Amino acid sequence: MSTPFGQRLAGAVDARQSNVVLGLDPEPGRLWPDAYRAAGDGPPEQRLARAVLAHCHLVVDAVAPAVVAIKPQVACFERLGAQGRTVLGASCAHARERGLLVIADAKRGDIDVTARAYADAFLGETATPFGPVAGLGADALTANPYMGADTLAPLLEVARPRGRGVFVLVRTSNPGAADVEDLLTAPDDQPVWARVARLVAALATPGAPIADVGAVVGATAPELLARLRELMPRTPFLLPGVGAQGGRVEALGPAWAPGPAGGLVTASRSLVRAHEADGGDPASAARAEAERLRTTAWTLAS
Amino acid sequence: MSTPFGQRLAGAVDARQSNVVLGLDPEPGRLWPDAYRAAGDGPPEQRLARAVLAHCHLVVDAVAPAVVAIKPQVACFERLGAQGRTVLGASCAHARERGLLVIADAKRGDIDVTARAYADAFLGETATPFGPVAGLGADALTANPYMGADTLAPLLEVARPRGRGVFVLVRTSNPGAADVEDLLTAPDDQPVWARVARLVAALATPGAPIADVGAVVGATAPELLARLRELMPRTPFLLPGVGAQGGRVEALGPAWAPGPAGGLVTASRSLVRAHEADGGDPASAARAEAERLRTTAWTLAS
Repeated sequence: MSTPFGQRLAGAVDARQSNVVLGLDPEPGRLWPDAYRAAGDGPPEQRLARAVLAHCHLVVDAVAPAVVAIKPQVACFERLGAQGRTVLGASCAHARERGLLVIADAKRGDIDVTARAYADAFLGETATPFGPVAGLGADALTANPYMGADTLAPLLEVARPRGRGVFVLVRTSNPGAADVEDLLTAPDDQPVWARVARLVAALATPGAPIADVGAVVGATAPELLARLRELMPRTPFLLPGVGAQGGRVEALGPAWAPGPAGGLVTASRSLVRAHEADGGDPASAARAEAERLRTTAWTLAS
Repeated sequence: MSTPFGQRLAGAVDARQSNVVLGLDPEPGRLWPDAYRAAGDGPPEQRLARAVLAHCHLVVDAVAPAVVAIKPQVACFERLGAQGRTVLGASCAHARERGLLVIADAKRGDIDVTARAYADAFLGETATPFGPVAGLGADALTANPYMGADTLAPLLEVARPRGRGVFVLVRTSNPGAADVEDLLTAPDDQPVWARVARLVAALATPGAPIADVGAVVGATAPELLARLRELMPRTPFLLPGVGAQGGRVEALGPAWAPGPAGGLVTASRSLVRAHEADGGDPASAARAEAERLRTTAWTLAS
């Protein structure tokens, strides 16, 4: 039996003195200049794959000392076509070599055997008559709760024995959160997100200070954080929305009630494009911005 | 401007006299015997990719005359690793050659630029400095509404100019639908799924008899179908859950109120494993079962 994910996460945060997560969302038109030089020749799909891979390596190398994990946005790799999974796998492997955890941001959710297939693809391996086929080897996967707890259970069945985790969408950072997540439910006017929060808290293995089932909680609605923390006392929060989307780290205090691993601040564009605002070369600017974010978040968290 | 998706779908259903959709959910341990013979030599991942591709070709060839579309379950291809996207692409291309539409069952949902990346990956193409990189070329994509309408809009922005569509999860066929989808909302005790149904109906382009935004509606809760049809009068319903999950075609009548394309009956295991129950070779058994389902559904629908 592996060390439970919550414990692994807390250990990594402590060892690296960081609860910052690098979002890897490579945009084909906005890669770092050195990445385009790695594109070489050939059809667009092959050139793009080489450039994106080079970009991800460069960005990971630049900010690795200041972060605890990467959060690749799987959509940005799927649009690469046939090369996408290879580029994603190599980017994750590179991050692991730098000592980072990998949180695959795929927001998957589906029924029984299908959820199991996603779990195998991202967190485990697929049993076949030819022998096992390895999955991505991510340490955690983001998941969508719309279809209910029985669509999350198969993810946990694969994750737990391997010390991996799942982060469930609870209250996200986009305006559209009002459409479903914020609907008030009968009889006591609890929003849907509060019901999902209870469900997420109930899924966790009891006991550990940091649970093995996390929650995605937008950093753009800090007024809800205290309530979310109350509903999910031990749940690690993955907090997107800082920087480009307008969220402020200073407002995230309640996330860290259970410890520094209680809130993982994710940043992508604000790091990767730091040189556009601050000048300097992309790597130095990203590194400086990541270190600034690390210091701010760590001071609040510890 | 392409023909709108609803019109394309209605035309295809009419031309093929079928509203049956073949679910392609290849399971590594339960492929057809001839598929394993195509596996050849090499590492497990390569052998599996060849076997799954062969299986998908065989299944599509067997049932193509009785169905209007395939619905590949993307999870089952993602677990193939680096070869997954290539096998998925080739399976879809093969179905298109047989005159079938492709509904990519990926249940994606994410914010703005990420939703756009998924849309590009499945329904459009990705603009890059090296030239465009083609997406999967699916005719429609399934999507998850938990994060709200602003996460569905980017899918439609890509889909519409290309005559493609989106099927949004509304009320699914699994028991866990009770956890979030069935929650009653204030002030009038409407379930969450009814709110989502209104949202789906509102997203559709006005006018056409069959809308360009569809809904995923489990065939295992036929008692809700009349209400769902009332809330979404022109919405094409994708109806999983017939057969292996216990749904009965005979109970799906309200789906077809707007016409034969109003309800797409999806079947996977009941076709692919028909020979296990009925005997005979897998292809003949699948074809016979698909034709049986087509006749039943068509009689009810037209």
